[in-house]
Amino acid sequence: MFTEHEIAIPSVLKVGDGMLGKMGEILSGKDISHVVLYLGNGLIDLFGDRVVKSVEAAGIKIHDMKELDSVDIDDIIDLAFAVDNEVQAICGIGGGKVIDAAKYASYLRKMQFISVPTSTSSDGFTSSSASLLVNGKRTSVPAKMAYGIVVDTGVLKTAPLKFIHSGVGDLTAKITSLYDWVYEEQCGATVIDDFALMMAKKAVNSFVRTPFTSITDELFLKELVDSLAMSGIANEIAGSSAPVSGSEHLISHALDSFLERPELHGVQVGVATYLMALVQEHRVERVKTVFTDTGFFDYVETLGMKKADYIKAVDMAPSVKPHRHTYLHEEKYREKAKELIATDEILSRILV
Amino acid sequence: MFTEHEIAIPSVLKVGDGMLGKMGEILSGKDISHVVLYLGNGLIDLFGDRVVKSVEAAGIKIHDMKELDSVDIDDIIDLAFAVDNEVQAICGIGGGKVIDAAKYASYLRKMQFISVPTSTSSDGFTSSSASLLVNGKRTSVPAKMAYGIVVDTGVLKTAPLKFIHSGVGDLTAKITSLYDWVYEEQCGATVIDDFALMMAKKAVNSFVRTPFTSITDELFLKELVDSLAMSGIANEIAGSSAPVSGSEHLISHALDSFLERPELHGVQVGVATYLMALVQEHRVERVKTVFTDTGFFDYVETLGMKKADYIKAVDMAPSVKPHRHTYLHEEKYREKAKELIATDEILSRILV
Amino acid sequence: MFTEHEIAIPSVLKVGDGMLGKMGEILSGKDISHVVLYLGNGLIDLFGDRVVKSVEAAGIKIHDMKELDSVDIDDIIDLAFAVDNEVQAICGIGGGKVIDAAKYASYLRKMQFISVPTSTSSDGFTSSSASLLVNGKRTSVPAKMAYGIVVDTGVLKTAPLKFIHSGVGDLTAKITSLYDWVYEEQCGATVIDDFALMMAKKAVNSFVRTPFTSITDELFLKELVDSLAMSGIANEIAGSSAPVSGSEHLISHALDSFLERPELHGVQVGVATYLMALVQEHRVERVKTVFTDTGFFDYVETLGMKKADYIKAVDMAPSVKPHRHTYLHEEKYREKAKELIATDEILSRILV
Amino acid sequence: MFTEHEIAIPSVLKVGDGMLGKMGEILSGKDISHVVLYLGNGLIDLFGDRVVKSVEAAGIKIHDMKELDSVDIDDIIDLAFAVDNEVQAICGIGGGKVIDAAKYASYLRKMQFISVPTSTSSDGFTSSSASLLVNGKRTSVPAKMAYGIVVDTGVLKTAPLKFIHSGVGDLTAKITSLYDWVYEEQCGATVIDDFALMMAKKAVNSFVRTPFTSITDELFLKELVDSLAMSGIANEIAGSSAPVSGSEHLISHALDSFLERPELHGVQVGVATYLMALVQEHRVERVKTVFTDTGFFDYVETLGMKKADYIKAVDMAPSVKPHRHTYLHEEKYREKAKELIATDEILSRILV
Repeated sequence: MFTEHEIAIPSVLKVGDGMLGKMGEILSGKDISHVVLYLGNGLIDLFGDRVVKSVEAAGIKIHDMKELDSVDIDDIIDLAFAVDNEVQAICGIGGGKVIDAAKYASYLRKMQFISVPTSTSSDGFTSSSASLLVNGKRTSVPAKMAYGIVVDTGVLKTAPLKFIHSGVGDLTAKITSLYDWVYEEQCGATVIDDFALMMAKKAVNSFVRTPFTSITDELFLKELVDSLAMSGIANEIAGSSAPVSGSEHLISHALDSFLERPELHGVQVGVATYLMALVQEHRVERVKTVFTDTGFFDYVETLGMKKADYIKAVDMAPSVKPHRHTYLHEEKYREKAKELIATDEILSRILV
Repeated sequence: MFTEHEIAIPSVLKVGDGMLGKMGEILSGKDISHVVLYLGNGLIDLFGDRVVKSVEAAGIKIHDMKELDSVDIDDIIDLAFAVDNEVQAICGIGGGKVIDAAKYASYLRKMQFISVPTSTSSDGFTSSSASLLVNGKRTSVPAKMAYGIVVDTGVLKTAPLKFIHSGVGDLTAKITSLYDWVYEEQCGATVIDDFALMMAKKAVNSFVRTPFTSITDELFLKELVDSLAMSGIANEIAGSSAPVSGSEHLISHALDSFLERPELHGVQVGVATYLMALVQEHRVERVKTVFTDTGFFDYVETLGMKKADYIKAVDMAPSVKPHRHTYLHEEKYREKAKELIATDEILSRILV
Repeated sequence: MFTEHEIAIPSVLKVGDGMLGKMGEILSGKDISHVVLYLGNGLIDLFGDRVVKSVEAAGIKIHDMKELDSVDIDDIIDLAFAVDNEVQAICGIGGGKVIDAAKYASYLRKMQFISVPTSTSSDGFTSSSASLLVNGKRTSVPAKMAYGIVVDTGVLKTAPLKFIHSGVGDLTAKITSLYDWVYEEQCGATVIDDFALMMAKKAVNSFVRTPFTSITDELFLKELVDSLAMSGIANEIAGSSAPVSGSEHLISHALDSFLERPELHGVQVGVATYLMALVQEHRVERVKTVFTDTGFFDYVETLGMKKADYIKAVDMAPSVKPHRHTYLHEEKYREKAKELIATDEILSRILV
Repeated sequence: MFTEHEIAIPSVLKVGDGMLGKMGEILSGKDISHVVLYLGNGLIDLFGDRVVKSVEAAGIKIHDMKELDSVDIDDIIDLAFAVDNEVQAICGIGGGKVIDAAKYASYLRKMQFISVPTSTSSDGFTSSSASLLVNGKRTSVPAKMAYGIVVDTGVLKTAPLKFIHSGVGDLTAKITSLYDWVYEEQCGATVIDDFALMMAKKAVNSFVRTPFTSITDELFLKELVDSLAMSGIANEIAGSSAPVSGSEHLISHALDSFLERPELHGVQVGVATYLMALVQEHRVERVKTVFTDTGFFDYVETLGMKKADYIKAVDMAPSVKPHRHTYLHEEKYREKAKELIATDEILSRILV
């Protein structure tokens, strides 16, 4: 009757410099000998040789290797059902799109998914859902937790800094999303999972308290990846994205729906996180410090994002997930948010 | 073939002021309506009323309530098989002994275990093993993860400070135990579970980086409890105590075996943690800072623990768990440790 | 390390007269209060009222009810992602197609699947895979075990007898498929799961030894459904369809690929089962008795199925699943099979 | 929320002639390389050589081998905690006592349990509970399902026939225990698990319908063992012994409590099964046929069991498990039972 709460966690989590060149030994260490490799657009040139050499040296058969550039569910179905039956694991190497495509193909075929993000722009590499195009509409669809996560910090360092900023934004967002979640329970609109809450908190706290000199520090990047992975587990424990996706994510989803060229997910989310911390009057100093010290605010200042768009997005936020009850689901907090966009000093500096 | 790694996690984790008085609603919120309550020696006077009132107000039947003062496996068998069949959960309220007794009785009867520590002297309240007397010998026996963990920080605050120091020692010890574990893998003597390693790190890092003004701060105590709980999960993921129990624990176990009156587990462990950080030349400053700022070193200084005992314990350490391979399983590091005991400034101050 | 082998089994299995009119209480007994109902072509007229009345009387909200007539994966994706988020269970009521469509929609949305077959033409209602059209090609895709199976024997009785014959054929087929599986292991081409083998055997033995006077006997139908359900579990334990789908299924799949109007799955399979029992020289008398006593052979005789088609299908059989190693994957047994088709007395009577 | 019902099943089930001599390859096939072997009283002489030779030939280290003759929980604790840490599996070879002792030692140490019954006197080899002496009182204690079941039918054949009769009695008993369980649900005293009910039915039906010429037929013994194993799974699914232990078991437990020399468990149970079939007026002919054809009644006739004892046991039955609601929990059925003991022709022949 009172069964233990059981969750699945990745069996492999390798984060370090040069990991792409160790894919072969990592996979064979788990008795995987048949794989397909999917890479993001343009990444075969960059990383193909390194990965193939390592994988083949380990005696693993590569049944297929190609670049993907679609998250349309119809394309992924074609992809998935063309994979040979002997394949044991599908590796997605690259950014959010190829990660989501490989993750979903694995789910459709009940094969293992190896998540190999080459940037940390979001926590997608560690979540058990995927963001796909279903009938032309971006939709979050259930999939499954990665069997393995492999992150080459050497690769992260050489990617444009904006991807790190985006990851910092997406992780710091847990501060406001968790506060929304607790609020939602207080309003009687949900029941919190205690452990998920605690773990997501630990993930973000461990990160925001990490000392660093540069955001390309090995230690900084490792903490960022580990914390994102751990918040993915919190998500899995909770059985929903609530702990990791609150009002700040609603704002970003709203922006995505009307902006012609949205910014990186975590960048939009990060700005909304600072805004919501002000609205919630909770840990504002911590958020300010992280975004100042990492250069996040400075980076945002270069983008020309618009106050008007954020104001519009605040109004749209509750309709993105009408069944939830975040701060932005109450009019008074939407009014407060809009006023803050207009008047807050930092927001006035980084938005136009 | 490549099944996900599944672990059990507690369904309830309530940490806060006044939680003892909310036991009833916490239990009934999980549809538990038949319990037994076991309390530590002398605790019925202190907490009995508060708990009984809350539990009965929630319509829960208390089949038995008594104080326990034994961890002899024979006593626990008698206890366990005398519990009524309708009982759904066994609550252990108190220190390490009653927690272990209740935990094991739950395992023997396949009932749920509710862990209610009234001090944080160790991570026993969150581990899936129990330390019992088997034929008069202290033995670590497999049991199961708590279904619920309830911690009243108000109670923790009023307990003698030494229990908090002990908890701080046991948690900080993860810094050296994790380093031992990694070393053991490098020596080819084990295979690390990546996720367990990462989570135990997050647990300790989140804690040691928490700002505090006093060790009885609500936030400090909550971080301490949460981090201990999370390292318990790391233990569960790893399927062994390796991530949370390294050379510093071997020293403490050795001390227990020959000292007539050992100090609190986490106190002995904490001193050994500082020693091993020196031996490992890893994060010494961090350990020093934690033990200085929390007053741990100052407390130890009042105890009169002996250098000679620690030296003896270092020599005995490898024989405590001969199949492991920590730093202390190599002679050169035992020599180094003994030299440091003799010469290190802090150790010279706190030991006699 | 040596973890128990864990499998999922349906939580609900209700087989009896009038069960369609008890859908409401069955669902609400499991705390399900939001559903969609998908019915086979023309079945809303026949069963709609009965089901809706029962479900609504139990206070369950029906978010959508419609007839389905497609197993094209693209259609099912549209269907699945249009289902409201609050829905807890997707009920598929009807024959193989609607069962497979509802099963797959449930998998895509991680909702519970309630399998309500109105005929027993195959074991599809209890398997964890679905047979869909992927790019116009019939493909077996992984899905998940039903949460509930509800079978109204009153409905089964009023359906044309051919559906019962088909179910008898599909179940009796386990005799030859299990023998193929054992042979495959002897040839070193697979490793059998002992428990799956045993349970599938029990399923078929319990059925073929059931005394009956008519194939519409309540007891006979209940045994048929239960045995099919249990062989579905064997399938789940084995992690593949091997125990329930051997050479006799390869013949039927081959027939499907070239016949313009294939007969019912279990009818084709049943004839092939008799043939393969002759080839394997294993339990021929048992198979003959079942198919004679149930009137299966007599029914087949009315269909005008062709010897030439079966001969062609025998030749194609190994190419249907080239990685397996059934009797038909060896030339000498294909020759033997073809000779038996030409010469066996019963086959000469029932085929033209 | 509506999670699948998951159950553990044995990973190994080997039943056949000569299996004792194949223990080594069976264990090593599952990567087990460290074991202890416990045998029943006097069995080292009989089987020791055969097993040791096979196990050692497979390169498996035997850490301990001894005969056991106690099911006292205190003895088993001593036994269990003396087992070396490297041991992966505890093998119990023999009758009910050594099986239960080895099963419980495995549970206490979280090692795998290999169940190797040398007789089929009961379904203990396949159940997840053990019958131990706790403070001198026979008590059913929770333990865990075997990881492997190995049965040498060659050994079963050479054992005295009474053990086979006992197994037949214990298995046939499922007919009355299942009917009690259904009745209990009708009385509102329990909720049946549909799948457990169905599987236990299949287990007994498959067995009682098996044609045989002698009860030492290979096929007969295999069906007996398989059916007992499957009813063990039904037990596991139900989460209680209710499906496999009804009023007929209560009578046997009552007899055990006052008879100086009780007969074999399954023999006592079998007589009670016939009695209860008469009381329930359910499948009497089937039970009569099985017990006549197997020679069970003839065997019982030789024992001199007393009508008076059965009458006394009927009166005591409800008090054995006061929380259940079998037929014997109602006075009118106890009266009917006692009258049948006095008057039924068969009972008058086989009891004195």
